[in-house]
Amino acid sequence: MERKLNAGIIGAGRIGRLHARHLNTRIANIRVKAVSDVIVKAAEECAAELGIPEYYSDYRQILEDPQIDMVFICSSTDTHAAIMEAAARAGKHIFCEKPIALDLDKIDRALEVVQKSGVKLQIGFNRRFDSNYRRIRDLIAAGELGEPHILKITSRDPAPPPIEYVKVSGGIFLDMMIHDFDMARFLIGDEVEEVYASGAVKVDPKIGEAGDVDTALVTLTFKNGVIGSIDNSRQAVYGYDQRAEVFGSRGMARSDNNTANRVQLSGPERVSEDLPLNFFMERYVDSYIEEVTQFVQCVKEDIPSPVSGKDGKYPVVMGLAAKKSLAEHRPVKLTEISLDLE
Amino acid sequence: MERKLNAGIIGAGRIGRLHARHLNTRIANIRVKAVSDVIVKAAEECAAELGIPEYYSDYRQILEDPQIDMVFICSSTDTHAAIMEAAARAGKHIFCEKPIALDLDKIDRALEVVQKSGVKLQIGFNRRFDSNYRRIRDLIAAGELGEPHILKITSRDPAPPPIEYVKVSGGIFLDMMIHDFDMARFLIGDEVEEVYASGAVKVDPKIGEAGDVDTALVTLTFKNGVIGSIDNSRQAVYGYDQRAEVFGSRGMARSDNNTANRVQLSGPERVSEDLPLNFFMERYVDSYIEEVTQFVQCVKEDIPSPVSGKDGKYPVVMGLAAKKSLAEHRPVKLTEISLDLE
Amino acid sequence: MERKLNAGIIGAGRIGRLHARHLNTRIANIRVKAVSDVIVKAAEECAAELGIPEYYSDYRQILEDPQIDMVFICSSTDTHAAIMEAAARAGKHIFCEKPIALDLDKIDRALEVVQKSGVKLQIGFNRRFDSNYRRIRDLIAAGELGEPHILKITSRDPAPPPIEYVKVSGGIFLDMMIHDFDMARFLIGDEVEEVYASGAVKVDPKIGEAGDVDTALVTLTFKNGVIGSIDNSRQAVYGYDQRAEVFGSRGMARSDNNTANRVQLSGPERVSEDLPLNFFMERYVDSYIEEVTQFVQCVKEDIPSPVSGKDGKYPVVMGLAAKKSLAEHRPVKLTEISLDLE
Amino acid sequence: MERKLNAGIIGAGRIGRLHARHLNTRIANIRVKAVSDVIVKAAEECAAELGIPEYYSDYRQILEDPQIDMVFICSSTDTHAAIMEAAARAGKHIFCEKPIALDLDKIDRALEVVQKSGVKLQIGFNRRFDSNYRRIRDLIAAGELGEPHILKITSRDPAPPPIEYVKVSGGIFLDMMIHDFDMARFLIGDEVEEVYASGAVKVDPKIGEAGDVDTALVTLTFKNGVIGSIDNSRQAVYGYDQRAEVFGSRGMARSDNNTANRVQLSGPERVSEDLPLNFFMERYVDSYIEEVTQFVQCVKEDIPSPVSGKDGKYPVVMGLAAKKSLAEHRPVKLTEISLDLE
Repeated sequence: MERKLNAGIIGAGRIGRLHARHLNTRIANIRVKAVSDVIVKAAEECAAELGIPEYYSDYRQILEDPQIDMVFICSSTDTHAAIMEAAARAGKHIFCEKPIALDLDKIDRALEVVQKSGVKLQIGFNRRFDSNYRRIRDLIAAGELGEPHILKITSRDPAPPPIEYVKVSGGIFLDMMIHDFDMARFLIGDEVEEVYASGAVKVDPKIGEAGDVDTALVTLTFKNGVIGSIDNSRQAVYGYDQRAEVFGSRGMARSDNNTANRVQLSGPERVSEDLPLNFFMERYVDSYIEEVTQFVQCVKEDIPSPVSGKDGKYPVVMGLAAKKSLAEHRPVKLTEISLDLE
Repeated sequence: MERKLNAGIIGAGRIGRLHARHLNTRIANIRVKAVSDVIVKAAEECAAELGIPEYYSDYRQILEDPQIDMVFICSSTDTHAAIMEAAARAGKHIFCEKPIALDLDKIDRALEVVQKSGVKLQIGFNRRFDSNYRRIRDLIAAGELGEPHILKITSRDPAPPPIEYVKVSGGIFLDMMIHDFDMARFLIGDEVEEVYASGAVKVDPKIGEAGDVDTALVTLTFKNGVIGSIDNSRQAVYGYDQRAEVFGSRGMARSDNNTANRVQLSGPERVSEDLPLNFFMERYVDSYIEEVTQFVQCVKEDIPSPVSGKDGKYPVVMGLAAKKSLAEHRPVKLTEISLDLE
Repeated sequence: MERKLNAGIIGAGRIGRLHARHLNTRIANIRVKAVSDVIVKAAEECAAELGIPEYYSDYRQILEDPQIDMVFICSSTDTHAAIMEAAARAGKHIFCEKPIALDLDKIDRALEVVQKSGVKLQIGFNRRFDSNYRRIRDLIAAGELGEPHILKITSRDPAPPPIEYVKVSGGIFLDMMIHDFDMARFLIGDEVEEVYASGAVKVDPKIGEAGDVDTALVTLTFKNGVIGSIDNSRQAVYGYDQRAEVFGSRGMARSDNNTANRVQLSGPERVSEDLPLNFFMERYVDSYIEEVTQFVQCVKEDIPSPVSGKDGKYPVVMGLAAKKSLAEHRPVKLTEISLDLE
Repeated sequence: MERKLNAGIIGAGRIGRLHARHLNTRIANIRVKAVSDVIVKAAEECAAELGIPEYYSDYRQILEDPQIDMVFICSSTDTHAAIMEAAARAGKHIFCEKPIALDLDKIDRALEVVQKSGVKLQIGFNRRFDSNYRRIRDLIAAGELGEPHILKITSRDPAPPPIEYVKVSGGIFLDMMIHDFDMARFLIGDEVEEVYASGAVKVDPKIGEAGDVDTALVTLTFKNGVIGSIDNSRQAVYGYDQRAEVFGSRGMARSDNNTANRVQLSGPERVSEDLPLNFFMERYVDSYIEEVTQFVQCVKEDIPSPVSGKDGKYPVVMGLAAKKSLAEHRPVKLTEISLDLE
């Protein structure tokens, strides 16, 4: 009989608890053995709620446990890179939430340590595991769209995050559009060469005062000549708007929003349906399960990670390029941000 | 801290294992303590797979365990009523798969024993917990449709069951349309007075030889004057077709099929989408979780069962009336089948 | 150069004016030469509005004009059969609005006169020329649905007609469902053998007092074993609801309502679209043009009429059978209504 | 009784004949009195086909006819401005196909002459009269979207035009995206300040050799801060793709493609619908009728033209700015193209 794997959760916030619950209830032959959080009470509560045997305030106690096979880095972004390095050195397989860091040097150094250590690394770009996006990618892979020509991604949140978060998150291109940058690479299967960013403050002037925009539209030029456009808004009153479209020489695929039901109401004034699923915890729940399932599988079967360290780095480069483009009001090549892009 | 409840599973087939898995992984503060099956090897395998401590060939061992709070009757239909009686006498709360029995006397007797015992009873009409049907019912309850006038239900399976099953199941009106009879009562919130059944053998002549039809259309007349129509087919080549529509004085609500994704492909010949989710294990998975969640909740909080014994009996009466209508080629009142319908 | 054909319009009401306008503006090489109406002022106004050279109170003046090639019988239903006979005897090709008559003897006699005369006859079942229904029929003809098994037609008006009309129209089965009876025969391409009708008074008690129902559901059994269901309501608050569905051994086709635009609005409470096109003048305008285009073509090219006299008779037989079924609360065979159904 | 107006058609090509037919059959109290074409045989055929009394090779004969109230300039683009000036001097109201010219000086001069003459001028941006775009604009005007933030327009042709046309048309930004530039102004109700254009040759290398791109994506920045994106392709294998979306502070409206029917086919492999209406003559036929109806109305009632000379100029400025942006690989302000933009 297969040995049961042990996981450690670093960071007992919303996303850490989500992964812990999925590991304990939705994935076979694995259990969460320990959870840590700098706020030890959070770790304790998480352990109690999910039946996790051990909890710590210091993640290093997890890394020192020889029974633990893999860790999930769900702490605040500024700690990701250092924990990743430590985990790699401790020989633990790593699932790390995005972004690895906002600083490319930190990312490069951490990825180098991981690579030398030989542990598995998967970055938490969960949308790659969503059935809509995956279906578009599969259609492309099956040749149903021919050669891609145009990519369009729409991503709008139901409400802006707290202004304190905006101040430290790196801004809309690094905390929000980063998912779409990853999706662009995932769908097209090629690297972006250049970005051109437009932005406006339309939702909340405080976001502007914090030095960010809340409405953004970025044009992407891929190496293979595909042209793409991503639009983001911090606030769509109708909920979480998550759509993509790829147009190619033989066809076009586009995804619409997921809804809680497929009921249509015809009344005296209109024909209507319910709003889209409201935010990422509802909209993307299946993708969170699937990404962790595949991570556990890649560890068990020693196969390549479906979202590599490079996949973690490039969207950060794209986000930094978009920021520079907006600031300098001109198209910016990714090589202006990092020369280390093979 | 809340005491953990214990459940026993009687019948380790597909639906028994489904409920056991959901109880162990998706519902808090309950665990499956024992499973039984007349084929003891099935019980053993189920126990191993799902980490259930005990397994038996005889369900009475479950009923004798004082630690077990509730049982799930998932054995073959002909055993439901007797087990239900025994479980009620043993003071166990009962979740019973549909139908209770094909024989009304058996149903009446079992329900009487249950009622006297005071245990909770829920019948496994899972579709009531599906988000589409629930949304329609909620719209009716909220007055969005006004007074209902017309009901339409479409229910078509992707492929017919084995002919051996058809021979013992009671036929299309009792093994398949029974779900739609329940749904009709659930959506309209009133009792059916009369049915008129049409049928044809279109899918497989063997079904006709077995004395059944594979294509059926039943007209329902409710006590409140609502007119309804249900159509069934044993085989829809495009998959599992599950739709409902209620038309009323102020509006109309209709549900469409669920699909695995919301992607549309525009190619040189057509605009297309993927087929509906193919069969009940995929299509209704969330409803199976929800029905068991609500059953556990009704036990814990001592509130009424959302699907009562009466809800288990009436669809059987309707199925028997439909059979009689088809045989005698005339509308049949439910009172011709059972006088005990208050 | 082709000779310009001349048409005469008998009855200057809404539908007569509609056909006249289409003949004068949408169809090549034909013009309306004369219009008649028992209310001569109506004929005069129609002539002035549409530039028709002649107008009369007596339709016989139209029939006596040797230059007139064809007549459009758009007068009140009770006059159709007599005018049809007179027109046939005068050697005029005939487009006759539905129904030919409510009395089968009248229909049979008129059709016999037409047949002997050799003139073309087309009955005004315009929905056959609608792009939605035609698409379903074409899919069937192309074998895309395999052998048909189940037919479903929904037909609901935005508001009931005046109660005075209901009293003389023959009732819901003859003035409203008659279109659906025709559609059933058109889509399935086979004859109905038996009907079973249910009905209720849900919209307006005055309709019940007039001896009619306003909500109806009819089960059809075709000779080839197809089972069908038609539902009608005199009042859908969301507008004109016109849908059909055919389910067969290889697939299913269904049509949805037409709308004025394809715009979807996502607001804070719902995702909505505009209501369906509100009534037959908007919804079916293209089919009215197409039916007349084909009638003119059948005259010009001496090809068979796309909607024959038989097509005019059968829906009346079905309507009378449905009335009898509702009255006697039992299934009624069409042969109980007319023996002359080859 | 109202006097019948007389129209003259200048240019008997596809679009000239279209307007002539609509004027003669779909609009009351107007007739086409004369048609001219440099290829006199084309004018003669058009006159014969549509029953136009007079035809000429020289448009000046139309301008000299005192009975003619208005002219439709449907000749080749390079002749529009000169004919417009002559028509204005002759006191004829002018409906002019787009674009007025590719040269801004010509446009400015022609518009000046028109303004001084006091005749009505309407530019043929027919899409403004399409029910989908108009519905979006009406929703904005009604405040349903709040303040607009993001605009997206997709416009893809079923097949590229002949390469000879591409060489003289001004290229994709002036012969194709010009419609979308107009639509952007129409929907948002504000002026564009700056454009940034990306482009690629993906459909046909000959288009690249002719100095043009066949795949283009342009970012628009409006004066009011709205950000927009327009994507064009010369070839969508699935037909004519015409969609728009406006996202605002209170909601989002988006239009989908029009189709010939609303039938959905569920087969063994997919659920499918027919392709969009294939090209502008089918897709936009109603808008062509509506634009001419409104032009005739603006002449009759002496009300402002719904598409002014300024509306004809601005999209040309935007097209020239997009060309410059693509050539110089940088955002370009409209004031770099023309200073005369109040």
